[in-house]
Amino acid sequence: MSFNLTILGCHSPPPKLNRNNSSQILEINNNLFLIDCAENTQVNLRKYNFGFQKIHSIFISHLHGDHYLGIFGLIFSMHLLGRKKKLNIYAPNKLKELIDLSHKLSFTSLNFQINFIPLNFAEKSTLYEDEKLIISSFPLKHSISCCGFVFKEKIKPRKINRKMTDYYEIPKFELNKLKKGYDYLMENGSILKNFDLTLNPNKSFSYAYCSDTLFFPKVTEFFNDIDLLYHEATFLDIDKKIAKKTFHSTSKEAARIADITNSKNLLIGHFSSRYKSTDNFLKESKMIFKNSKLAYDGLKIDFSFFLK
Amino acid sequence: MSFNLTILGCHSPPPKLNRNNSSQILEINNNLFLIDCAENTQVNLRKYNFGFQKIHSIFISHLHGDHYLGIFGLIFSMHLLGRKKKLNIYAPNKLKELIDLSHKLSFTSLNFQINFIPLNFAEKSTLYEDEKLIISSFPLKHSISCCGFVFKEKIKPRKINRKMTDYYEIPKFELNKLKKGYDYLMENGSILKNFDLTLNPNKSFSYAYCSDTLFFPKVTEFFNDIDLLYHEATFLDIDKKIAKKTFHSTSKEAARIADITNSKNLLIGHFSSRYKSTDNFLKESKMIFKNSKLAYDGLKIDFSFFLK
Repeated sequence: MSFNLTILGCHSPPPKLNRNNSSQILEINNNLFLIDCAENTQVNLRKYNFGFQKIHSIFISHLHGDHYLGIFGLIFSMHLLGRKKKLNIYAPNKLKELIDLSHKLSFTSLNFQINFIPLNFAEKSTLYEDEKLIISSFPLKHSISCCGFVFKEKIKPRKINRKMTDYYEIPKFELNKLKKGYDYLMENGSILKNFDLTLNPNKSFSYAYCSDTLFFPKVTEFFNDIDLLYHEATFLDIDKKIAKKTFHSTSKEAARIADITNSKNLLIGHFSSRYKSTDNFLKESKMIFKNSKLAYDGLKIDFSFFLK
Repeated sequence: MSFNLTILGCHSPPPKLNRNNSSQILEINNNLFLIDCAENTQVNLRKYNFGFQKIHSIFISHLHGDHYLGIFGLIFSMHLLGRKKKLNIYAPNKLKELIDLSHKLSFTSLNFQINFIPLNFAEKSTLYEDEKLIISSFPLKHSISCCGFVFKEKIKPRKINRKMTDYYEIPKFELNKLKKGYDYLMENGSILKNFDLTLNPNKSFSYAYCSDTLFFPKVTEFFNDIDLLYHEATFLDIDKKIAKKTFHSTSKEAARIADITNSKNLLIGHFSSRYKSTDNFLKESKMIFKNSKLAYDGLKIDFSFFLK
């Protein structure tokens, strides 16, 4: 039962030593979800001890190089290292053309299958769903088509109250039904309320990733009440005109989005390299949204610890 | 008057922390020539203090990802950082298609011109020539079309022997002719031999780069008597069958090429990640060619010091 975010890179281009471009790993129950994949992501995955083969899916928000140029090398290394497991790639459909062309030119035939799912830039879309998790994409407003992503755990099973189930001698094979919330019918015909036999489930976590975008309040239609929102904050308030011109956000605008989406915490990143320090980003963000944090390369957030 | 080689990366894929894939900078008279451009080359250029804008030309030997995937990010960073100067790219012609497609998808219009020169895989070809330098490509034998490169300084001007030119009161405007090797006609009609007025020129250096290739003795037709030969040595002798199967060389084979081309020094690299240490590569190479050296990321060779 894990839900952890690790920032592999959170800086605008050009990349520098220890200032990598956008890439993050979200680890949910031992599955790795790679969100954006800048140049050198594969080396950063090694640096922070993430096995390539545990990557379940890759999500590419848009086709600016600082968000996807590492995918070619990562795919090839997965192949070299013997991956057999299918890899899901959720990305703008033209990325497939680039990947296919690079493989054609190098006469590469992969040992594993790529399941390529093109993003929908028109509306919120469910990308993946299983019994525990639902992942969606939603449109952002950047200079080229761009999506954000939301990862939401479903409500977890209720926990068995051992003392009570032992007291009523409820057989083990009935416990799964209790976890799902059903009441229990005793042999004598009386009903035991689920609430008396179980405890509240562990918290379900949620994470939203707002990649490159203008200030775009329409995202309130796509997500709300998120535990942690990552939002780009490329510029400081003093440069808000440049932000608008380049379809990026300021840290204050990121904070406003956290506020209006009722997010519990905000993590800002994608800092422009024109600023020597990131301190002012946090100051400006906190003026509007108190629970603001600064991203940095190597930051790891364990949701169950961080959100206690 | 500089002639220096810096290894940015010299390992086979997959790249690891401090084990970068193929990329080198050859600095000749303050011009930077980038030879292959693996992922993360732009960050390594910064690490070793090479300004992007001083890059005169990029040479891509072949279209395996470990030799070219860094070029997209590097070009974009040059653009971001305001490059105006034309950039020469000598590479397999299909690389242009990939670069153009990536720019089309990101709506990128560069601030500078790319002068793209496709490589000739059929025969040795002159790529660049000025009054001081000549650069050629030559075919290698790999699993896909692949070229090596030779960089040769032309014979340098003879050095003025000040004592003698002062003694004969030779005017300054005549000195350039002396540097070119001409004799001097005195006013009294007698001739002073150039040899008596000048000293031997500084040494002209040469460097050859043999990227991925099978053992390929035909290269003796393309270069000889080189000061420093870089040759790939992906495998040890014990794995020579794998070397052959994957169109790579062993360290002994690299040494044989250095020997038959009458190279003065050999630098081996492109080591497979299957070996924990590179020590045995050097041992095996030295059995055949004494002046063998191991490449490593960050190695800098100043030819005028190294070849004294």
